Amino acid sequence: MIPYELIFKKRNGGRLTPDEIRFLVDSYTRGGLPDYQMSAFLMAVYFRGMDKTETAALTQSMMDSGESLDLRGRFKVRTADKHSTGGVGDKVSLPLAPAVAAFGVPVPMMSGRGLGHTGGTLDKLESIPGFRTRLTKEEFLGVLDRVGCAIIGQTDRIAPADKKMYSLRDVTATVDCIPLIAASILSKKLAAGPESLVLDVKTGDGAFMREMADSKRLAVEMLGICREAGREAVAFITDMDQPLGLAVGNALEIRETIDCLSGAGPADLRELVVVFGGEMLRLAGKTKSAADGRKAIAAALSDGRAKRKFAEMVEAQGGDARVIGQSGGLPASKYVEAVKSPRTGTIQKLAARDVGVASLMLGAGRTRSEDVIDPAAGILLAKKVGDRVKKGETLAYLYANDASRLPPARERYLGALKIGAGQPKKRKLIWQILK
Amino acid sequence: MIPYELIFKKRNGGRLTPDEIRFLVDSYTRGGLPDYQMSAFLMAVYFRGMDKTETAALTQSMMDSGESLDLRGRFKVRTADKHSTGGVGDKVSLPLAPAVAAFGVPVPMMSGRGLGHTGGTLDKLESIPGFRTRLTKEEFLGVLDRVGCAIIGQTDRIAPADKKMYSLRDVTATVDCIPLIAASILSKKLAAGPESLVLDVKTGDGAFMREMADSKRLAVEMLGICREAGREAVAFITDMDQPLGLAVGNALEIRETIDCLSGAGPADLRELVVVFGGEMLRLAGKTKSAADGRKAIAAALSDGRAKRKFAEMVEAQGGDARVIGQSGGLPASKYVEAVKSPRTGTIQKLAARDVGVASLMLGAGRTRSEDVIDPAAGILLAKKVGDRVKKGETLAYLYANDASRLPPARERYLGALKIGAGQPKKRKLIWQILK
Repeated sequence: MIPYELIFKKRNGGRLTPDEIRFLVDSYTRGGLPDYQMSAFLMAVYFRGMDKTETAALTQSMMDSGESLDLRGRFKVRTADKHSTGGVGDKVSLPLAPAVAAFGVPVPMMSGRGLGHTGGTLDKLESIPGFRTRLTKEEFLGVLDRVGCAIIGQTDRIAPADKKMYSLRDVTATVDCIPLIAASILSKKLAAGPESLVLDVKTGDGAFMREMADSKRLAVEMLGICREAGREAVAFITDMDQPLGLAVGNALEIRETIDCLSGAGPADLRELVVVFGGEMLRLAGKTKSAADGRKAIAAALSDGRAKRKFAEMVEAQGGDARVIGQSGGLPASKYVEAVKSPRTGTIQKLAARDVGVASLMLGAGRTRSEDVIDPAAGILLAKKVGDRVKKGETLAYLYANDASRLPPARERYLGALKIGAGQPKKRKLIWQILK
Repeated sequence: MIPYELIFKKRNGGRLTPDEIRFLVDSYTRGGLPDYQMSAFLMAVYFRGMDKTETAALTQSMMDSGESLDLRGRFKVRTADKHSTGGVGDKVSLPLAPAVAAFGVPVPMMSGRGLGHTGGTLDKLESIPGFRTRLTKEEFLGVLDRVGCAIIGQTDRIAPADKKMYSLRDVTATVDCIPLIAASILSKKLAAGPESLVLDVKTGDGAFMREMADSKRLAVEMLGICREAGREAVAFITDMDQPLGLAVGNALEIRETIDCLSGAGPADLRELVVVFGGEMLRLAGKTKSAADGRKAIAAALSDGRAKRKFAEMVEAQGGDARVIGQSGGLPASKYVEAVKSPRTGTIQKLAARDVGVASLMLGAGRTRSEDVIDPAAGILLAKKVGDRVKKGETLAYLYANDASRLPPARERYLGALKIGAGQPKKRKLIWQILK
């Protein structure tokens, strides 16, 4: 096969065969195909798109470029996983994995780190003293066997093609292309070997896809890939216009996770855990319906089973499980500042992206992947959209270890807010379910 | 300026400013902008196009990346040049330059070599023993001063940006993009400094642009660039469905050139020389109208003035001018084969591209730019479209120095022909004139 011909074919709107796509990905990963041909190809894909078969072949080829697990048949019960496209305050995976595992459904979860305004599951877990997100394949399988759930990071051996292609897309303006996004996400996610998958595609201000139409296209694209790859999947489009829950920042979100696992915590967080968990139990064949699954998950959150499973996982991954039972043990910040409301009214808007950036400014996030984060930094919201506030009342608490970070973060946080008269139109938490 | 932003802007359909385009071209030529960003940019241009201002800025930046002449004011008379997009048997420049120069209009011509099925003016001239197409800037200006016309090749110092970008386009499927083609052609053509320009955009089977619509778009694009660059230009769309004239191959075309300069030779060749020459005299301000110019050129071809000027140019560039007065002196091939007609009928089609490839197979052309050509090889047509032939009558003569080249070339040549009943619809020689 001649790379030129394949670029030309795609440029002219043709469809590449799975073999042709595999050839491009393989030669690129091995260094035979130069960057300049791959970037021209990716730009042609940006304009011409890819159909379901092409996108599935791209995903599979990128996944096959590195290590992957095939868990089919390893456990008595079908495995299940969940993926979120990321947001602000999105700690759903943390209570969800143990809640589902509490029913004997293995949850092999491979997660990412935060970048920009969004947080990352691994960073949150690493705020628990001792917690290890880098496990060998054997250790990962060992935790899955003993506990039933494990959350680890991607190693360099997972989908190296995606890593190389993503770096190239990042400098050639070909990131925001839905088939490429979907293939990139799933080449890594499917490498952990889940047999079924719940996809949480965020929409709104703080989401990767701000517009509903784009979120929906991404969900459809990912469902198509899962189907082609023989993994049963359900996609939810959920709201990320304001942060999820009240905590934004790593240790703060672990604290909120423990609240949720104690049957308490914010209602929106609990709802997503219950809904996604219910779906995962159904996908794994544990309950007949998602409704039965939801009841089961709600019970496990209330009666402590999910929390015990979380403690087991933390311990199995080297973390100090004592943080779960007590309020101490997690990193605490030197400074806490209460942000007071400048006026009386109702919160009309609380822009998730700006809250995420404010948290980043406090030290909780990264602008570049090599930045070091402060696990104690972040924001605890006291008021959310629709809440009434009086002038001088506390809107949120800012946490930082460096006092000079507080004023600019406070400015940014206040910029995220709109306080006015009247009740804002309520946005749905779950916008749509696609199968 | 950040390259990423410029790729992103073009990808989204934005217009780049002249400064932004110059930044991209300059950084690319100097090696600061990597190939993979330029190829992504070029693919975005393929899909989004460029407007007149952008294309003119691209042309100017590519031209400015190397050496160029500015002849404005150097001569008492405005200089004139002609550019053809190339074809089979297209030797128009050879009689044209001296015919125009015979009237005191300086013709500073920078030409190219043949590649694939098309021939090149430089290769044709080099079949004259001793003829040098590589002159220094000073030699070029000296010939222009003394003779009034000179035809030379592009040095590596002319538009290096175009050379680098063209190599990249060639392997990333971004060659066939009209603004990029127009900018590439004119960045080199305008570097020789002509004050006015006749553009001959070929259309039909043997042309770079086979379809009339594409030829017209290219003509319009080039006119726009010339206008922005302050050079008066006229574009002709002329036929290249069958070869121009009867001779295809280097020395054979020099012989036909001399016929034309002797007031004889094929009518189609003479017509283009007269029409383009007439326009060039008008553009240079030598005649009031193109019609007056045409009369003047026709007279110069008939009375020997143009031929004398050609002899002067050949001598000034080191060539043996004796080839002009006599039939000998030009390289001759060892083998000549007459191709006989397989049937009786009228020639319906004589596909220029296949004739060009047949000539290439005889040794007259190159498949790669490093190939060495045989100046004596080629084809002399005896019959063209619309001519009646009897079975066994000679259709053409094939010239080669290697007998094994004859049979495959004959096959290819016969494949170019369609002989049938009835008179084929006559195609125009000059399809359109655009100003």
